[in-house]
Amino acid sequence: MINVGIIGYGYWGPNLVRNFYAANDCIVKSVADARPARLDQLKKLFPVIEGVLDGDDIIKDPKIDAIVIATSVCTHFQLAKKALMQGKHVLLEKPMTASVKEAEILMNIAEQKGLLLMVDHTFLYTGAVQKMRELIDRNELGNIKYLDSTRINLGLFQSDINVLWDLAPHDLSILSYLVDETPYSVNARGITHTCNGIENIAYLTVNFPSGLIAHFNCSWTSPVKVRMMLIGGDEKMILYNDLENTEKIKVYDTGYTYYNDEERQQVLVDYRTGDIQVPKVSTTEALLNMANDFISCIKEGKQPQSSSCLGLEVVKILEASTSSIKNRGQEVIIKNLSTPAVYSA
Amino acid sequence: MINVGIIGYGYWGPNLVRNFYAANDCIVKSVADARPARLDQLKKLFPVIEGVLDGDDIIKDPKIDAIVIATSVCTHFQLAKKALMQGKHVLLEKPMTASVKEAEILMNIAEQKGLLLMVDHTFLYTGAVQKMRELIDRNELGNIKYLDSTRINLGLFQSDINVLWDLAPHDLSILSYLVDETPYSVNARGITHTCNGIENIAYLTVNFPSGLIAHFNCSWTSPVKVRMMLIGGDEKMILYNDLENTEKIKVYDTGYTYYNDEERQQVLVDYRTGDIQVPKVSTTEALLNMANDFISCIKEGKQPQSSSCLGLEVVKILEASTSSIKNRGQEVIIKNLSTPAVYSA
Amino acid sequence: MINVGIIGYGYWGPNLVRNFYAANDCIVKSVADARPARLDQLKKLFPVIEGVLDGDDIIKDPKIDAIVIATSVCTHFQLAKKALMQGKHVLLEKPMTASVKEAEILMNIAEQKGLLLMVDHTFLYTGAVQKMRELIDRNELGNIKYLDSTRINLGLFQSDINVLWDLAPHDLSILSYLVDETPYSVNARGITHTCNGIENIAYLTVNFPSGLIAHFNCSWTSPVKVRMMLIGGDEKMILYNDLENTEKIKVYDTGYTYYNDEERQQVLVDYRTGDIQVPKVSTTEALLNMANDFISCIKEGKQPQSSSCLGLEVVKILEASTSSIKNRGQEVIIKNLSTPAVYSA
Amino acid sequence: MINVGIIGYGYWGPNLVRNFYAANDCIVKSVADARPARLDQLKKLFPVIEGVLDGDDIIKDPKIDAIVIATSVCTHFQLAKKALMQGKHVLLEKPMTASVKEAEILMNIAEQKGLLLMVDHTFLYTGAVQKMRELIDRNELGNIKYLDSTRINLGLFQSDINVLWDLAPHDLSILSYLVDETPYSVNARGITHTCNGIENIAYLTVNFPSGLIAHFNCSWTSPVKVRMMLIGGDEKMILYNDLENTEKIKVYDTGYTYYNDEERQQVLVDYRTGDIQVPKVSTTEALLNMANDFISCIKEGKQPQSSSCLGLEVVKILEASTSSIKNRGQEVIIKNLSTPAVYSA
Repeated sequence: MINVGIIGYGYWGPNLVRNFYAANDCIVKSVADARPARLDQLKKLFPVIEGVLDGDDIIKDPKIDAIVIATSVCTHFQLAKKALMQGKHVLLEKPMTASVKEAEILMNIAEQKGLLLMVDHTFLYTGAVQKMRELIDRNELGNIKYLDSTRINLGLFQSDINVLWDLAPHDLSILSYLVDETPYSVNARGITHTCNGIENIAYLTVNFPSGLIAHFNCSWTSPVKVRMMLIGGDEKMILYNDLENTEKIKVYDTGYTYYNDEERQQVLVDYRTGDIQVPKVSTTEALLNMANDFISCIKEGKQPQSSSCLGLEVVKILEASTSSIKNRGQEVIIKNLSTPAVYSA
Repeated sequence: MINVGIIGYGYWGPNLVRNFYAANDCIVKSVADARPARLDQLKKLFPVIEGVLDGDDIIKDPKIDAIVIATSVCTHFQLAKKALMQGKHVLLEKPMTASVKEAEILMNIAEQKGLLLMVDHTFLYTGAVQKMRELIDRNELGNIKYLDSTRINLGLFQSDINVLWDLAPHDLSILSYLVDETPYSVNARGITHTCNGIENIAYLTVNFPSGLIAHFNCSWTSPVKVRMMLIGGDEKMILYNDLENTEKIKVYDTGYTYYNDEERQQVLVDYRTGDIQVPKVSTTEALLNMANDFISCIKEGKQPQSSSCLGLEVVKILEASTSSIKNRGQEVIIKNLSTPAVYSA
Repeated sequence: MINVGIIGYGYWGPNLVRNFYAANDCIVKSVADARPARLDQLKKLFPVIEGVLDGDDIIKDPKIDAIVIATSVCTHFQLAKKALMQGKHVLLEKPMTASVKEAEILMNIAEQKGLLLMVDHTFLYTGAVQKMRELIDRNELGNIKYLDSTRINLGLFQSDINVLWDLAPHDLSILSYLVDETPYSVNARGITHTCNGIENIAYLTVNFPSGLIAHFNCSWTSPVKVRMMLIGGDEKMILYNDLENTEKIKVYDTGYTYYNDEERQQVLVDYRTGDIQVPKVSTTEALLNMANDFISCIKEGKQPQSSSCLGLEVVKILEASTSSIKNRGQEVIIKNLSTPAVYSA
Repeated sequence: MINVGIIGYGYWGPNLVRNFYAANDCIVKSVADARPARLDQLKKLFPVIEGVLDGDDIIKDPKIDAIVIATSVCTHFQLAKKALMQGKHVLLEKPMTASVKEAEILMNIAEQKGLLLMVDHTFLYTGAVQKMRELIDRNELGNIKYLDSTRINLGLFQSDINVLWDLAPHDLSILSYLVDETPYSVNARGITHTCNGIENIAYLTVNFPSGLIAHFNCSWTSPVKVRMMLIGGDEKMILYNDLENTEKIKVYDTGYTYYNDEERQQVLVDYRTGDIQVPKVSTTEALLNMANDFISCIKEGKQPQSSSCLGLEVVKILEASTSSIKNRGQEVIIKNLSTPAVYSA
């Protein structure tokens, strides 16, 4: 039985508590939040869980095996470092850290200490993403040529991170999970419509050596909510609409081929449309799957699907995007991924 | 009565013939296409119209007052120049020309000769775009903060122009028509999935001095057809979905405001959602409206809604986008718009 | 403070408990269910609420002021009668009773005892239905000419009541709430695809003296879920799509007028389509509004929106529909509504 | 080469002319319409076709082999009878005739004279209906349990026939084409909102001996256009949405099974949902397919898919529906289908 402590009981906190409460082989022992009103809320819903004001009380608690950190991004590094140094397994909310350097330091500590460091990219545990992974593993799509994601709504303006750091981690984690190739560079442009300099609309392109292109359209200022992703292979293409209830994934038997028309000295392209398949996808709650993956990886000394390597790749792209926005959209090369730090018990 | 000749009877030709046939105060006298099979087709549908193999026969025909040029973009300049030199009014298919320089030369000739030079940006004449213009003129949207357009489908790969030159003119003409501000710069990235080096997917951002940002997502390789544009003002926002039959335009009484929270030293943003209005839009055929505008502007010596100035602005953005793609997404400043050449009889 | 007991902790029970828990001026004292496993479930979610196996313990509890009955329809009458005789206010789940006679007896007892008898037609408390009522009260629709409802999905086959008694109460309660006229007759056809004689598909038409017609399409065997209602007035029409998140209600400025063409001796009809309005509707949880209405009506001696009169009208239509189905679709006249039993403290 | 004459050049006439013009092995020789303005319109679009004011000129023309009758329903019988008596093959617009008796007389004449008598139920020739037929022929649906059709919009009020005779023929022809069983009875209710007594809203149920039930919801007074049909088998179910561009047919791997729970002495039902398949359907123009079927059946002495037998079955249901509406929804037994009159050259 793994004893879990959760630091941060804000917007996402109650969902984490509820799902770790329901997960296998673990007990939620205590939750920390500096705001007494949040602890009152916790008490009302989960009277058996201890609430503490100071996260350090959880970090230092010898009965706690694993710590979930659900605070604002800028605090992830210090809290995770302390927890790892105290010998705790750590689950970080997305995005993993505020910089690549922070992520790499944490991964090194975790590796040295033989602890699990994981990032909560919940979307990887949805039935839809699992199904897409399955389709790609069966090579139904052929070579992946592009991924195009739109995640816009009229949403909360964050005051510490821009819209890419807020919304794109979902889509970037899916990109990393589905595509094996390592990205080469990014271009990004964004705009702020407030005076705090934090972009509320941004566009990000991720470029790959093979010619695969991935594009991300993120906004807090759209009157309509869109959560749509296209993944195009040269055999089939996927439309992933997360707002659909029963048809989240559509697989189009659609493709294009080109050939040289020697006579006219040009390239001709033919395309083909066929049937559409709408596979049934599992509707188990993703966050519960994530919680179970965290606990079972601690117990079995495995790497989770939403690993720190994947979390690091997401931060690398985000960090590069910030640099590109500052340089007015200029291409920024992504630093080579270091050897991943793998945890094994 | 204006006598019209049409050069080029390809994909779009029959639509032009049909609508100029139906337009007021004009007669379609002859149509030129170098392919005899196309002229046979013309003969079958419009037995009274003369078909000729050589466009020059139309350009030199003294009975022709105005010439519609619907050939491939790279031929626009030479044909239009010849026609203007022969004293003919000219309507060019979109995009106007293959370069800014060509467009400016044509505009100068037209101005000197007192002839009308117009570009067929048909979308400007749709009920939807007219309605959006009306809403903006009534200042219902407040200050426009962003425009975000997606125009993707599984479409014909052009062999002479890339996907931006093919699809974006529609959206760029709408941008120019709805927004008074002059764009400052562009960033664009694109990718080709064939060996001919012509981009089949491209992303374009147009930046404005005021902080307005416009973004264009164009693809020939999407399994689904999307033709959607968001226009966000600080008072209201518009969703324009061209694939909707009866609800092309939705006006959201939605906005966001920000204020400084001096205590917490940060910017806070509140948003508001209200009713949605779906105005009825005219369903008159846009191409017929365009043809009538061309003819009446010739007769009355006026500038059309789809003027050569607007056509030039579109080409300036396209030319800059090509340069940005070549420079791997780098920002490219758009050359200042020269004084527009205005035709008045 | 009103002490509430709830009898029946099945599918709907946890929702009732949660909302009465959150409602104003009341305390959920105890919950009865004959199945120990259900009481275990209650204990887990609501440790402070007492669970009892026998509903009679609640009915006889002198500290209980009001009883919510959420058991199967055939038990409503006996439980409600006992509760009323014990001086308790009663809230019945929909449909109110298994027959008109039962409903009338309960209403008489409640009237004699000065107790509140209410039916939980939750839909009346949704933002969408409230908005439609408001539009009708403002006479925006003109004279209502028809109501057409489809409520189909792949759903649980009930083993005691047919699909009309299961699904139509929602729509019939909306009909009664929005339309002032008393229905005259019904026709209904249904079919069972099992051997238990309980219809899983049924079609019901409710006829009104004025020419208003209401139609209800109910099925447990549709592959797609549809919850759509059209309400047509001679001035405007409403589309109510309960599955829409943000556009539940659309108001069409659409109508038709007819006139006699004396020359051709026939009636000609013109129709008109105008703008569409999508009003913002409240998203407060309907069940909470219902719970608050129940409690405040007890306290203030008022009749609730979802009154027993309305509940009786729904049962009258259902009872007539059963008779029509047995008579292979023949018209069945609805018995005149008796004088409603009104509770006032 | 079959010479065709067309009587009636109203709303549908130009479509018939255009498609017979394009069909194989036939020539449209002349078109009759009593309104000179319609003939002017014909002349403009099809200068080579002769226009005549009197249909008799076509019927008596010895050079005409086949006659298409596209006049109002009440005139079908007299015109078709005359044409058959003159030895012409006849294609009637839907519905075939104004009564069962008329249809049977025409079928007898056609049989005696060895002529083809066909009804233009265009929908049978769409890719969607052909695909559904193919799925049913392959027994993918299992036993068909229900068909539920909605065909509503804000449409032209006809002045001679009610909404069922106007709209339901489309859906009834699809029913007849897809379902082999002979219907047993109908129930129908309708309402008129004008003073001419012609129903503008009507609901029709068609009952079959096996327990199959078919339901038709038809209205000229809906603010939204719906053209949707559900076909439920015990293996799979189909959603046919005619307003969809690319997903007209969805096949749900969905079903329900029931079993007797002997212990609880009741019937239990389980349902199952699986993948959805969206087959690609042919987009050839249905009316052209129909025209080609007519011509090739004349030439080869075959029966067309849209045969007079099928047309008669549609009229039988319509006639019974009128009787049921007059009897306030009472069940009306459909007269047994007589032996069909089959044409063979």
